[in-house]
Amino acid sequence: MNSSSARTEFELIHAIARHVKPSAQVPIGIGDDAAVIAPTPNQHLVTTTDSLVLGRHFTSDWTAHDIGHLAMAVNLSDLAAMAAKPRWALLNMTLPKDSVYATQAWLDEFMQGFLSLDDGLVLVGGNLSEGPLNIGVVLIGEVMPDQAITRSGTQVGDLLVLTGTLGDAAAALSRPVDNAPFGLALRQRLHRPTPRLLAGQHAAGHVHAMIDVSDGLLADLSHLLHAATRDSATPPLGAEIELQKLPTSKAMKAMGFSEAERWNLQLSGGNDYELLMSVQPSSLTPLLADLQLANTDATVIGQVTSGGEILVLDEHGGHFVPAKRGWDHFQETADE
Amino acid sequence: MNSSSARTEFELIHAIARHVKPSAQVPIGIGDDAAVIAPTPNQHLVTTTDSLVLGRHFTSDWTAHDIGHLAMAVNLSDLAAMAAKPRWALLNMTLPKDSVYATQAWLDEFMQGFLSLDDGLVLVGGNLSEGPLNIGVVLIGEVMPDQAITRSGTQVGDLLVLTGTLGDAAAALSRPVDNAPFGLALRQRLHRPTPRLLAGQHAAGHVHAMIDVSDGLLADLSHLLHAATRDSATPPLGAEIELQKLPTSKAMKAMGFSEAERWNLQLSGGNDYELLMSVQPSSLTPLLADLQLANTDATVIGQVTSGGEILVLDEHGGHFVPAKRGWDHFQETADE
Repeated sequence: MNSSSARTEFELIHAIARHVKPSAQVPIGIGDDAAVIAPTPNQHLVTTTDSLVLGRHFTSDWTAHDIGHLAMAVNLSDLAAMAAKPRWALLNMTLPKDSVYATQAWLDEFMQGFLSLDDGLVLVGGNLSEGPLNIGVVLIGEVMPDQAITRSGTQVGDLLVLTGTLGDAAAALSRPVDNAPFGLALRQRLHRPTPRLLAGQHAAGHVHAMIDVSDGLLADLSHLLHAATRDSATPPLGAEIELQKLPTSKAMKAMGFSEAERWNLQLSGGNDYELLMSVQPSSLTPLLADLQLANTDATVIGQVTSGGEILVLDEHGGHFVPAKRGWDHFQETADE
Repeated sequence: MNSSSARTEFELIHAIARHVKPSAQVPIGIGDDAAVIAPTPNQHLVTTTDSLVLGRHFTSDWTAHDIGHLAMAVNLSDLAAMAAKPRWALLNMTLPKDSVYATQAWLDEFMQGFLSLDDGLVLVGGNLSEGPLNIGVVLIGEVMPDQAITRSGTQVGDLLVLTGTLGDAAAALSRPVDNAPFGLALRQRLHRPTPRLLAGQHAAGHVHAMIDVSDGLLADLSHLLHAATRDSATPPLGAEIELQKLPTSKAMKAMGFSEAERWNLQLSGGNDYELLMSVQPSSLTPLLADLQLANTDATVIGQVTSGGEILVLDEHGGHFVPAKRGWDHFQETADE
């Protein structure tokens, strides 16, 4: 005790803990060997974990607020895709000693971004280690039993419905946008994405399957189609995507991309954090009405087929061949 | 789809997922946006997260099995210290591309170590990213409401009871032990510590407070004493530790350390993963009897005082001044 060393780690933890409000459902929070949570009776838990790595998910010019926002947003997006309500978080950070990250000022600003997305969420615990920067987030949400929406369940003939717009974050990564007409809007989509929490919850009861689009539309659509037949001997489903229907923001339109450039960013760019839903045609109208209640625009971008392939069609019915399918963490080459 | 890139990440995930058994309380496990858990009715959740970093918690000569074992053990030890029963795990790994770690063979062996400690625990999900090696583990356990044992609650006059023996892991780190009489036993304590899960659960009802000893006895004792008065204006409690009572393994005795060397390793070495309990004297006999049912030896090593200081006493009542208090992640200097 009275050790100067312990005080330092204590100060960093305090910079995090001071942002946390007490909660009746968290009898034991930050500061013990583990946190104790009193879950809501008759609910299932939905849990996910995702990390941010410097140079991969963000770069050293990002503000602490933006990094905190992104760390929370990518995890909330996973809960949104299950139609879950976020409740509790743990934060597991590895910080380089003597770096700007291992300071009270940085952690304080990080926490403001981290907790800015959802008022109901409570940070219950976590861990601080010394090492290469790594920001691990754990979320626990709740959902009524059997009400979670999974990736599996897609059927031939389903419509593919996407929230929001596509490609904005990828556009901001593809070239400097600071002087573009809506450059700030594009950068916001990259640095501060909006997880579609309410839309995910409002989709419950209307859709066969759902996934969040984080690795690029084609990659995540492929995951969705594979999940439908994962446990059977049948080949995966296919899909037809109509390029003219890809939802495109005003900012994206103003960038002056060629059509092919824009399509590639929208099909494979990643970091969109929109929801992709697979919907029986008769459920489309009630789904869109419920999404409007969640203030979320959504667009039909194509249809599920039995073909086993994803075809990308232009307005004349011609096939567009994307430059790259999507993002893989362990292999950066385009495929095929 | 059919992307060679996605197949690679898929193969790594498969090397992990193939070790996982289905569970009635996990309706949706690995492979969706998030995992869904059906918790046991009328239980509270106990959750913790801890990371292993290369060069800090293990070195590159460790086997994958040992790293997997340690990653699980350090987290189980936190649940043990709350008297919780471990139930579910998430694994959040950042692996360097093209390294030995990002291979099916390494992950396969890692998983064998990871899942070797507790048969009831189910891996429900996680995340793989590319970046500097970081092994993040999340555990969710269960405990009866109000039965979790916290760090706070210690009272003046309590006996300090410690499971197992102290300093073995620190001894293995302090010098090459391969040719020592019990070198392998010491190395095992470092590479494959045994979390005191059953002992923690058997302590419930007998102890005022409990903590796991991972940063060194003095550092963790200091946390325990501070926790007792954290929310009041009173100064922290103190303690008297009797050096002659520190539980010492046969392997440690055979190393030929001087008394001062041994005491320093035992007081400040860290990586013990034993449980330190604060016990009213009248509860000692029933506690030790219950710990015997958990096959766990335990030793009274001292007593809690009102003095505000931790005094370390030799057999003549003289004060021993340790070289270092314990481990802080962000400051490696000895204090004071």
